[in-house]
Amino acid sequence: MTTSQTPRIETRSTQEWQAADARHFLHPFTDHKALAAKGARIIERADNIYLWDSNGQKILDAMSGLWCVNVGYGQRALIEAATRQMSELPFYNAFFQTATVPAIELAEALAAIAPPGFERVFYTCSGSEANDTIVRMVRRFWDIEGRPQRKKIIGRVNGYHGSTMAGASLGGMSAMHAQGGLPIPDIHHIQQPHWFELGRHVSREDFGLLAAGWLEARILELGPENVAAFIGEPVQGAGGVIVPPASYWPEIERICRRYDILLVSDEVICGFGRSGQWFGCETLGFTPDLIAFAKGVSSGYIPLGGVLVGERVARALVDEGGEFEHGFTYSGHPTACAVALANLRLLRQLNLPRQVGHETGPYLAEQFAALAAEHALVGEAQSCGLMGALQLVRDKATLAPFAAARAVGMLCRGHCFGNGLIMRAVGDRMIVAPPLVITRAQIDEMMALIRRCLDLTLDELRTRGWLGV
Amino acid sequence: MTTSQTPRIETRSTQEWQAADARHFLHPFTDHKALAAKGARIIERADNIYLWDSNGQKILDAMSGLWCVNVGYGQRALIEAATRQMSELPFYNAFFQTATVPAIELAEALAAIAPPGFERVFYTCSGSEANDTIVRMVRRFWDIEGRPQRKKIIGRVNGYHGSTMAGASLGGMSAMHAQGGLPIPDIHHIQQPHWFELGRHVSREDFGLLAAGWLEARILELGPENVAAFIGEPVQGAGGVIVPPASYWPEIERICRRYDILLVSDEVICGFGRSGQWFGCETLGFTPDLIAFAKGVSSGYIPLGGVLVGERVARALVDEGGEFEHGFTYSGHPTACAVALANLRLLRQLNLPRQVGHETGPYLAEQFAALAAEHALVGEAQSCGLMGALQLVRDKATLAPFAAARAVGMLCRGHCFGNGLIMRAVGDRMIVAPPLVITRAQIDEMMALIRRCLDLTLDELRTRGWLGV
Repeated sequence: MTTSQTPRIETRSTQEWQAADARHFLHPFTDHKALAAKGARIIERADNIYLWDSNGQKILDAMSGLWCVNVGYGQRALIEAATRQMSELPFYNAFFQTATVPAIELAEALAAIAPPGFERVFYTCSGSEANDTIVRMVRRFWDIEGRPQRKKIIGRVNGYHGSTMAGASLGGMSAMHAQGGLPIPDIHHIQQPHWFELGRHVSREDFGLLAAGWLEARILELGPENVAAFIGEPVQGAGGVIVPPASYWPEIERICRRYDILLVSDEVICGFGRSGQWFGCETLGFTPDLIAFAKGVSSGYIPLGGVLVGERVARALVDEGGEFEHGFTYSGHPTACAVALANLRLLRQLNLPRQVGHETGPYLAEQFAALAAEHALVGEAQSCGLMGALQLVRDKATLAPFAAARAVGMLCRGHCFGNGLIMRAVGDRMIVAPPLVITRAQIDEMMALIRRCLDLTLDELRTRGWLGV
Repeated sequence: MTTSQTPRIETRSTQEWQAADARHFLHPFTDHKALAAKGARIIERADNIYLWDSNGQKILDAMSGLWCVNVGYGQRALIEAATRQMSELPFYNAFFQTATVPAIELAEALAAIAPPGFERVFYTCSGSEANDTIVRMVRRFWDIEGRPQRKKIIGRVNGYHGSTMAGASLGGMSAMHAQGGLPIPDIHHIQQPHWFELGRHVSREDFGLLAAGWLEARILELGPENVAAFIGEPVQGAGGVIVPPASYWPEIERICRRYDILLVSDEVICGFGRSGQWFGCETLGFTPDLIAFAKGVSSGYIPLGGVLVGERVARALVDEGGEFEHGFTYSGHPTACAVALANLRLLRQLNLPRQVGHETGPYLAEQFAALAAEHALVGEAQSCGLMGALQLVRDKATLAPFAAARAVGMLCRGHCFGNGLIMRAVGDRMIVAPPLVITRAQIDEMMALIRRCLDLTLDELRTRGWLGV
């Protein structure tokens, strides 16, 4: 038993932290044995867009933590909001016909920035819980409407909607589906609008209409009277920052309306300025019925997620539904809501959605286009606001890919991590989503690091003889 | 667009907060229309075991927020831990072969207080995500063991394991199962060990063995070779603080071992001192393979949950499993882990598990027994550590219940809420789970409020002519 209130000051070596990590911490999406053999990198502190590890290396975090630290690290306004709210009322529930001021204020603030018609919010702790909630909510909606047979939900191959059983089922990640008895029943998937992988025989615009048509075909196959909803990320994030053709989402919306199917926008990554507007559906040109959110709502300083509920579903749930038998202890957690409120105020005060849409986003797109034009490894560059992807190819002329088994993306990621840059690999697609506070000068700095790491990768591939073969 | 960084000071009236609440906030487990008609109670601040609402009323919080604020409100050590960690590193992920100091330290601290053999932790944001993770984890375990047909999981009627699709499926709440297409496949339920409801024809000890036998019968019915795991709360919480007979859990453990079925203890409510030891399984006398936790781990100051993984499952996952394709952005959230670490230190420093086990818990049990002996409305009192239940009955002599439709529990809850006491109603079972820092004098204060509210309820029932009929 400890008797002193003062926490001990931890001054272990990196190796000691790694050993303790390997003994006790089961990381997400990790081969624990392989990680233990190598040793985790210990991230100790952060400021603005930079991290420092336990060896003192400075790292440019081009992934915003994990798509979430939209306002960057070290923002006093968020820290002060947490301290103030924890001192007044760290937690109270919203089950017992009770509410707290931050939960109400944040709901108001979300309604104010959401597209028209989104006046109500159901809170969760995470994006996974938000998408899981959506499964129950859309089925409940159709029950109330007297159409209980509308149970089937359509998602997409290579979509990502979290890691609960229902979230992972909505997503289309085959490695996840292979473990734990997924997907749950009545979840179906269509192919993704990934022009580079699936559509290079036609124009992007034509491919967008073609890919949206797969939804209509699946609806007809399942019977429109059995389909509850379609869910998608405006831009697929974890799938590899796949920006669909401009023709895609308006056609998806038209199809959903035609068959009276609810349209769900998963804005866990795209929301809160990432796309260059408050929500990705605005940038991609469609109006959903439900919006899932998390990550950027609190810039990841504290866990928070939820569902913005559009007018049609809200009216049924509120006016006709009686008790909705669903919710979480931390639905409307006052400290989480207070931090999120400070975060939304800061995003607005710094004018970040507009800055991303009109300045830094277009600047990143220019830099990516220039890189794609000249670098031998880059077959395609795509971006939307401040998320972007560089597709690595074996042969720039034919756009021929590397053999998947060579894991060239992971090799490139290794060079990035070794050279002070966090860039993620999804197959051979290198992706970035830097904090929205990144400046033009910092984009230049990031691009210099990216070029250096691509060059190092190219050198290694030449040495290995893996190019142009 | 706001231009000032200073948040406005909100000085709205209760009615204004209620109106904003009704317009924008969809509360968990709530009939939104009914709540809007009545207006939510706005909880504004808290200290120790007390809350204050927007009308200035002081309320004794006998439910610890929602079974979670184990160390009580206003604990500086937790607030300072959040402030310090948010300033250094509010968030970083554990996906990219990276870890943070608080996530490692908390994993060590959890291993130190957990029963022997629990050395590893998988983090989530909530108890729902913890139980959802357990479904994927136990099935993955049996896949690795070469027994992929072991998919079925057995839970209990009136058990509660959260509100994700998988969590709500493991639980046995019929109202939840009626909405949203639940339960998912391969989840089965046996009856609960609720002596007052189901077992009054035999002794408590005999009933415990009988109720455990229902598990064996179901295993044999499903085929032991198809069963992956059994899950239960040591003491059912949301089901109504149902303390099983002492014979129950050891027999459950024996049955699980006999058929080689994993035993999962959901410690979301029972953990972290609530039962009078660190974990409820210790108090109830069994050793599980997996432990789900949340709530008390951080005293609810910040969302955090997880799974403590026992040696057998850990060895398979780590040594044989390769990548476990599961995880959450906020798995190992550094700020959440730092707050939880401060919370565990405080629980230990204040010696709260032992105080609950040896002082305040037994004192609550005495007071409850005295109340049950004398009060006309109370047919049975049960408690375990600092969670307790008072069963309201129509006729004390015969223990005859009230008609469910009369909702006598909710009527009693109304008197409590009106008289400065938060006590929850589960049917006609009134339940308490006060912060573990509650003193003997404060238990006296709580008991006086409970007696007063029971008396007011009795008066109202007499007036309505609902007694002894």
